[in-house]
Amino acid sequence: MLGKSDVEHLLTMKDALESVEEAYKIYGKRALVQPPIVSIDAEIGELDIKSCYSKETDLISIKSASGFWRNKDLGLPSLLATVTLLDSKTGSPLCMMDGSLITGYRTGAAGGLSCKYLARKDSKLVGIIGAGNQARMQLMAIKEVLDIEQVKIWALSLDSMILFKKEMEILGVEVTICETAKEACDVDILVTTTPSKEPIVKSDWVKPGTHIVAVGADAEGKQELDPDLYLKARAFCDSISQVTALGETRNAIEAGTLNVSDLKELSDLVLEDKYGRTTREEITLFDTTGMGIQDTCLATLLYNKAKSLKLGKDFDFLS
Amino acid sequence: MLGKSDVEHLLTMKDALESVEEAYKIYGKRALVQPPIVSIDAEIGELDIKSCYSKETDLISIKSASGFWRNKDLGLPSLLATVTLLDSKTGSPLCMMDGSLITGYRTGAAGGLSCKYLARKDSKLVGIIGAGNQARMQLMAIKEVLDIEQVKIWALSLDSMILFKKEMEILGVEVTICETAKEACDVDILVTTTPSKEPIVKSDWVKPGTHIVAVGADAEGKQELDPDLYLKARAFCDSISQVTALGETRNAIEAGTLNVSDLKELSDLVLEDKYGRTTREEITLFDTTGMGIQDTCLATLLYNKAKSLKLGKDFDFLS
Repeated sequence: MLGKSDVEHLLTMKDALESVEEAYKIYGKRALVQPPIVSIDAEIGELDIKSCYSKETDLISIKSASGFWRNKDLGLPSLLATVTLLDSKTGSPLCMMDGSLITGYRTGAAGGLSCKYLARKDSKLVGIIGAGNQARMQLMAIKEVLDIEQVKIWALSLDSMILFKKEMEILGVEVTICETAKEACDVDILVTTTPSKEPIVKSDWVKPGTHIVAVGADAEGKQELDPDLYLKARAFCDSISQVTALGETRNAIEAGTLNVSDLKELSDLVLEDKYGRTTREEITLFDTTGMGIQDTCLATLLYNKAKSLKLGKDFDFLS
Repeated sequence: MLGKSDVEHLLTMKDALESVEEAYKIYGKRALVQPPIVSIDAEIGELDIKSCYSKETDLISIKSASGFWRNKDLGLPSLLATVTLLDSKTGSPLCMMDGSLITGYRTGAAGGLSCKYLARKDSKLVGIIGAGNQARMQLMAIKEVLDIEQVKIWALSLDSMILFKKEMEILGVEVTICETAKEACDVDILVTTTPSKEPIVKSDWVKPGTHIVAVGADAEGKQELDPDLYLKARAFCDSISQVTALGETRNAIEAGTLNVSDLKELSDLVLEDKYGRTTREEITLFDTTGMGIQDTCLATLLYNKAKSLKLGKDFDFLS
């Protein structure tokens, strides 16, 4: 059993990147069973169950993750999650861990990984729309894979931007607070991390050579990008079936600005260890809604680390 | 955290019957969100995830249950399960418990409950096909609701029947080992509990007034009853959508011996507290594949009992 402080102690963004890279390889080989996401609408909040069986590592993970926004009033985190790791040769539960940090890290790592394979290698300037937890996670991950020096941030709340600037400058990047979303789009790498239901980023704000990471839209009705962006971008994603149902890409397909046949999965590049950008000028775009296999791989890494450090508490369900 | 011995200490068939009756009421009112079952085929075994949100009690349960038949060689139980109970107002996990006994008890209780509402009230003689764990559970549950004196058992293995007889006679019933399946069908209540893929029970073996509990068939390809039985029986089930996809009823619909519109849910009787048999002579049939809400209600009862007895171990995921 691993509590949040155990996970906090064990987890680094480097681990998350390594795990997500492994996850994408397993997904690329289709050496997995990844059932549909179960979503329970509990009126004032939502609970999602993501599960996955990795044939490569003989492990199954089940993550239940909830978002209850009124929890703040009760002194509880809004986002709560637990991950159970099971042995796929016996069905035995091996480890249960707090999962509230796992989703953030592995989602950040997916964005970072897309930059490794698609952004210009001399990218220095990142623009981020939204200044919440994912804004931080994405930046941490991108900083691991590229030599980022400067960040432009834009969000609805000035306070949240000031807090972001304060926290992120400690990490060694210069943060500029933008007055308009447009300003934050004039960058090498553009990351969108909001729960917006209306497009924020206009197509003509994005200059040639930009790599876009679309993180916020993960459900029907959510949208951060002008669908016309897809007309001039090469589109990648984590899972075609998921992003066409739930992601930003869904909006482009509905608007008729993208043919599904032109959409590629990042895992193909990862599996072949192939840098995917073909010219300095092209715009690339990565849309992610997150996959169970990312949880499986990251939870496995944490479980192995905890075992070798003898961290956590024992509990035997069969006793 | 509740281990298997805690659950064993807390759990009675009376509790299971009470919980399943409550579960059917909640289901009858549709005061729940019960997502589709997630099934992961792990080659040498299978893992199922059943989840449910009860609006009536503001609780969510997630049960992962696995069947790995080679576990015996490793000294592990074939059936393993854990249930997590969460607060549907915050998403916080409240309790994790071993779930290996829960499925058996709540499945037995569903059969028992169907006898309370559909079997003749003076039923004394139960016939059981199959002599495994569910045969015991069904008998225990039926004995709670009716004054059962005698049991006829038939199974493929004589050893399993001898063991069943030995164990069940301690509970105060006379057990007769049958030489043929037909013999075991000449009873007041007939229960089928095998994983058979071919019909065992012939339609003309079943006499007027019998109540049938069909438990074994819970997946495509499984079958215990001659579909012609449906021509002369009034058919009930736990969930129309589930049994027509996975249960014994599926076979009858495919064979054209039942119209879905003639199929009733037991929860309607439970909700109205209405005895469902209309004549002594009619044959009634209850098909069950099990529902998440049964796990929610039984896990809730166990959690409350454990709290009041201060049983189990504390573990704080957020610490």
